[in-house]
Amino acid sequence: MRGSDFSVSSRLNVAVIGAGYWGPNLARNFRASPDWNLAAICDLDIERAQRVADGVGGVPVTPSLDDVLADPGIDAIAIATPARTHHPIVLKALDAGKHVMVEKPLADERARGVEMVERARANGLVLMADHTYCYTPAVLKIRELIADGFLGDILFVDSVRINLGLIQPDVDVFWDLAPHDLSIMDFVLPGGLDATTVSAHGADPLRTGKSCVGYLAMPLQNGAIAHVHVNWLSPTKIRQMVIGGTKRTLVWDDLNPQQRVSVYDRGVDLALQSAGTADTRDSTISYRLGDTWAPALPEREALANVAAEFAASIREKRDARTSGESGLRVLSVLEAATGSLGRQGAPYPVASGHTNGDHAS
Amino acid sequence: MRGSDFSVSSRLNVAVIGAGYWGPNLARNFRASPDWNLAAICDLDIERAQRVADGVGGVPVTPSLDDVLADPGIDAIAIATPARTHHPIVLKALDAGKHVMVEKPLADERARGVEMVERARANGLVLMADHTYCYTPAVLKIRELIADGFLGDILFVDSVRINLGLIQPDVDVFWDLAPHDLSIMDFVLPGGLDATTVSAHGADPLRTGKSCVGYLAMPLQNGAIAHVHVNWLSPTKIRQMVIGGTKRTLVWDDLNPQQRVSVYDRGVDLALQSAGTADTRDSTISYRLGDTWAPALPEREALANVAAEFAASIREKRDARTSGESGLRVLSVLEAATGSLGRQGAPYPVASGHTNGDHAS
Amino acid sequence: MRGSDFSVSSRLNVAVIGAGYWGPNLARNFRASPDWNLAAICDLDIERAQRVADGVGGVPVTPSLDDVLADPGIDAIAIATPARTHHPIVLKALDAGKHVMVEKPLADERARGVEMVERARANGLVLMADHTYCYTPAVLKIRELIADGFLGDILFVDSVRINLGLIQPDVDVFWDLAPHDLSIMDFVLPGGLDATTVSAHGADPLRTGKSCVGYLAMPLQNGAIAHVHVNWLSPTKIRQMVIGGTKRTLVWDDLNPQQRVSVYDRGVDLALQSAGTADTRDSTISYRLGDTWAPALPEREALANVAAEFAASIREKRDARTSGESGLRVLSVLEAATGSLGRQGAPYPVASGHTNGDHAS
Amino acid sequence: MRGSDFSVSSRLNVAVIGAGYWGPNLARNFRASPDWNLAAICDLDIERAQRVADGVGGVPVTPSLDDVLADPGIDAIAIATPARTHHPIVLKALDAGKHVMVEKPLADERARGVEMVERARANGLVLMADHTYCYTPAVLKIRELIADGFLGDILFVDSVRINLGLIQPDVDVFWDLAPHDLSIMDFVLPGGLDATTVSAHGADPLRTGKSCVGYLAMPLQNGAIAHVHVNWLSPTKIRQMVIGGTKRTLVWDDLNPQQRVSVYDRGVDLALQSAGTADTRDSTISYRLGDTWAPALPEREALANVAAEFAASIREKRDARTSGESGLRVLSVLEAATGSLGRQGAPYPVASGHTNGDHAS
Repeated sequence: MRGSDFSVSSRLNVAVIGAGYWGPNLARNFRASPDWNLAAICDLDIERAQRVADGVGGVPVTPSLDDVLADPGIDAIAIATPARTHHPIVLKALDAGKHVMVEKPLADERARGVEMVERARANGLVLMADHTYCYTPAVLKIRELIADGFLGDILFVDSVRINLGLIQPDVDVFWDLAPHDLSIMDFVLPGGLDATTVSAHGADPLRTGKSCVGYLAMPLQNGAIAHVHVNWLSPTKIRQMVIGGTKRTLVWDDLNPQQRVSVYDRGVDLALQSAGTADTRDSTISYRLGDTWAPALPEREALANVAAEFAASIREKRDARTSGESGLRVLSVLEAATGSLGRQGAPYPVASGHTNGDHAS
Repeated sequence: MRGSDFSVSSRLNVAVIGAGYWGPNLARNFRASPDWNLAAICDLDIERAQRVADGVGGVPVTPSLDDVLADPGIDAIAIATPARTHHPIVLKALDAGKHVMVEKPLADERARGVEMVERARANGLVLMADHTYCYTPAVLKIRELIADGFLGDILFVDSVRINLGLIQPDVDVFWDLAPHDLSIMDFVLPGGLDATTVSAHGADPLRTGKSCVGYLAMPLQNGAIAHVHVNWLSPTKIRQMVIGGTKRTLVWDDLNPQQRVSVYDRGVDLALQSAGTADTRDSTISYRLGDTWAPALPEREALANVAAEFAASIREKRDARTSGESGLRVLSVLEAATGSLGRQGAPYPVASGHTNGDHAS
Repeated sequence: MRGSDFSVSSRLNVAVIGAGYWGPNLARNFRASPDWNLAAICDLDIERAQRVADGVGGVPVTPSLDDVLADPGIDAIAIATPARTHHPIVLKALDAGKHVMVEKPLADERARGVEMVERARANGLVLMADHTYCYTPAVLKIRELIADGFLGDILFVDSVRINLGLIQPDVDVFWDLAPHDLSIMDFVLPGGLDATTVSAHGADPLRTGKSCVGYLAMPLQNGAIAHVHVNWLSPTKIRQMVIGGTKRTLVWDDLNPQQRVSVYDRGVDLALQSAGTADTRDSTISYRLGDTWAPALPEREALANVAAEFAASIREKRDARTSGESGLRVLSVLEAATGSLGRQGAPYPVASGHTNGDHAS
Repeated sequence: MRGSDFSVSSRLNVAVIGAGYWGPNLARNFRASPDWNLAAICDLDIERAQRVADGVGGVPVTPSLDDVLADPGIDAIAIATPARTHHPIVLKALDAGKHVMVEKPLADERARGVEMVERARANGLVLMADHTYCYTPAVLKIRELIADGFLGDILFVDSVRINLGLIQPDVDVFWDLAPHDLSIMDFVLPGGLDATTVSAHGADPLRTGKSCVGYLAMPLQNGAIAHVHVNWLSPTKIRQMVIGGTKRTLVWDDLNPQQRVSVYDRGVDLALQSAGTADTRDSTISYRLGDTWAPALPEREALANVAAEFAASIREKRDARTSGESGLRVLSVLEAATGSLGRQGAPYPVASGHTNGDHAS
């Protein structure tokens, strides 16, 4: 299935499973990556697989997942199939000794995600969540700035992702869009997404049978808050995240290619005094109205970075930066959101660790 | 206190109570109004009152509310004092037979607002809420478009009002900013703001003792939802409201003077069939990607319209378009928001009518 | 070189000449077109040709233009080679009986363009200028609106196309960027680009040997004016055209995907009176401040429309909508611009028709 | 006319001449200035003068310029009358020993401006041009950045000032709007506005008798260029200036209050070699794609700065930062623009110094 010359065989071999919406992007980026040899494209619809293969210049295709997994030359698989199929495919692949990258969301149920994460760990294999947005130059820079303490302690994170969107047949707007916001928050926040409860408010005013407008509120540690607004019914497209810190505040506007990331040296300063009363506290509030700064961002396709990280994590025998655990944290919030929706928006506990019990009481 | 010639005496006489932040604006607009004679400015700080009087060209000033109310020539008073003082001043004025306009919020407690509204009704006097935003050309146009059925049935209303703002000593960000959004929603929605529960999520990451970041989620009738995001800690200023309808969707961007109101003939159409299953329902979803239209808006200061409406409601012996009841509905939501905050964001019932009991169970 | 089955042979056969920057786009669009069979890709650098062929799925390649032209099955060629090579290639192709589409600018000298246009006419073949922008949904809509009289008579056209751009080795900023603006103006103006003189102002502050900043002023008929600003040194990217008319004014902002075309029902009305003096004339000026309207635009790649128009013009034996003559008009303005630059910006006559004499006096 | 107490008499006394459009702004700012005592408002229309006086709280008014000039207590006058009246009023005032600030443009003819500047110098008095824009926080910052070498050598300046504007009865769009752009360029460029020729292109497509759309191209020293686009017929409002430098490029967008001034560390670098040929020169071009930075700007009304500078220049016996000479340079360009218009846009020499001869040959 692969060439035998040294320069190619020193690459890792990957098969892309699923040739639908996202598969062609994976195929193109693995094909262009210096780390990878794109060894196969697998889809039950073999003609669809062939079209993707043609688009990247002659890669073998197969309708059989079993054949791919049986091939000892294949090091890893990248899965771009519907969420409900992730669990069986991933477990099979891990049991066949393959490293696995899987589309968001990790699985369609948290318990299944836990099983996947545990299996990967038990088998000593990489399980990477393809949280593509995390590998955009903008988000990589945001993570770096926060890690360097440039924003100070995080006060709030507000994310808006609205657009006239396809009403998905099987998932609501939370499961469709919020994985982006949640995975980014998990990636850039120093302690990851550490919400212990979620309140979800959804609306289905068109009676589609699922929420088309949604809001997620998540108290974070130390009094901070994270919030997500997702919406399929908005005629205008907004993709904006504001991250407020004690030192500076950052705005990421993904639809402004000329200035995606702006850092404002503006904010409220509050000198806390141990003996302060409400009155003295007020008197120590001050406002900074400093400069704005927009870092230059390299132009690089996020999926190229994803492919590189997947290879690096395999070679360095470490977790990927967007590990199965991060995918699991996203899944935990989504599942808690569904729980909160069922309770008319009352806060619902977010499961953590690898436990699978019912956390709602 | 007033001139005696006919052209002036045919005007109504008003006194402005409170010469702080908002009072000068009221004074200037009453002074310029063809409907009103600005008869007095009243403030305990007489020098402050005098400065306001000087700015509008020689109006009598007084530190005594009682003197104002005792003057039989005064038809009405406009109150721009702190919220906690509204209740006693308004009741006194109503009992003195004066029509009253009062700054938002109507009062600092719902029960007091109820008493004010009932007293005005009992005394046959106008009690108007100065919901200034409702009288901007943009909001008047929005109200008209919705009333004319141009948007169809309302599906969602999403309002964002964020800015680096002064941290108020006595109120949180909900009570400071959300009255704007809530009063506008009450004004433009055909049935007013009919939320029966509110979920409020707040954060106080700077430990100021009150929420500085806030979110309000309010299910509306027929599966619609209203949502408000208010924030004192954002370095960027956003004032945007999206109103989604079955026919069209409207975006109001108050910071874009060249195109404040845009109406999008875009959206999701869903042909409901009585016998429809989930599958057939999906097949009847379609998308409209039509034109955008931005109505021309006249340039007129909102407060000039407020002054005109106050006079008209008195002369026509009718409720003002932003009546005491509308102020009360806003107050009811704010009080429910505070209730929800006390329950970690769980939905809290919104009191309605003139009842004053404990609605939370 | 081509398949023999009916469904394919009913298509026209085209060869793409030049596999550099633009060739792959042509290849991809001819490949996807229902009107065309992509019969060959020709480039002296056969490996480059092969890479393009691979990208579109197995098209024959050749380094020999002569072979392509000798193939009786080839109906047409599309040329994406440097401007200085257009003249010999086009003439050769026309003499071989092939229809020709050629990249902008039509040629590197007007006299050569004239020869190309005349040869095409003499041989009864289509010579089409690939003015791609003219086939974007935005420009097609603009042309339609103007043709329908929606803007009224045209008063001015102002085009700005600035960006941090590559400093071209062989051409200045006028020849590199202005063909876009000029070809669009020629396309949308009812009488085409009818400027009889051009004033060009250029600057080369970095001493590159050619203008990097440029301005073109062109008086149009009836007192109107067209103006173009092109700039390689601007850190911000602007692509905006304003077209003022007696009835309405249109703004095309190509970098605003959410509202590329806006039509403003605003303007100055001037009721001219035959006996009017300057004074009475002033008194009849009035201002319209009407609505703004943004037409919905279909999403279609311009080059797909280009391919369709090329086929249609061949089949219908008519000039293409962006004919060789339109390419010649653009070339005439560019050459006059160079003439004006040589005279420190003094107006320089634009050659017209098929004359080739020295028009400058 | 003035009070006699020390704190007031230590202020300079100023009279505002002209109570039309701009006069009230001057009156308000002199009234609020710690440097000035607003001693009188003078207008032939005494009622108009009184209205302005009322607005600032009781200042004496007079219809007589002679009375103002005869008052020995008056130190200075600020003139906000039509341009054609500047020359006689300024000369009279200078001969009466008054310092003078005058609205833009300095005069309606260059020769008159020269006489005014010479008279002021001869009499040892300050003649200041009220180039208000130069005193905005944005322009003050731009001047400072350029003076500090932050942009490097200036390569180009491009200014756009378009809007649906009133068609002035007496002046064309160049004389109405371009003084703003020209005075700003003169203020921020290290050597002032040093253009030696101007090409002006105007259009009057509505047959109003004067240009309503205008373009000015001005070659600067060292191969740089300045360009101005002014337009009364544009439905959209743009006020933007781009200043390109060898080190950085600055964009001033006056209609973006959240980020008026942006400095881009982007550009083209060209390492010039003395022995460089065209080819080697090309090989040394490189591109910087660095960060963007937006300085915080204080909020201060420009006219308050104008009043302060007028007082400081009088007290320090020095030229104002926007001196009569700067007003003269603006006037020289405007007059050359008119000359160029008369020659169909051919470059026209800009008169310099205090000469008054005919520079056009």
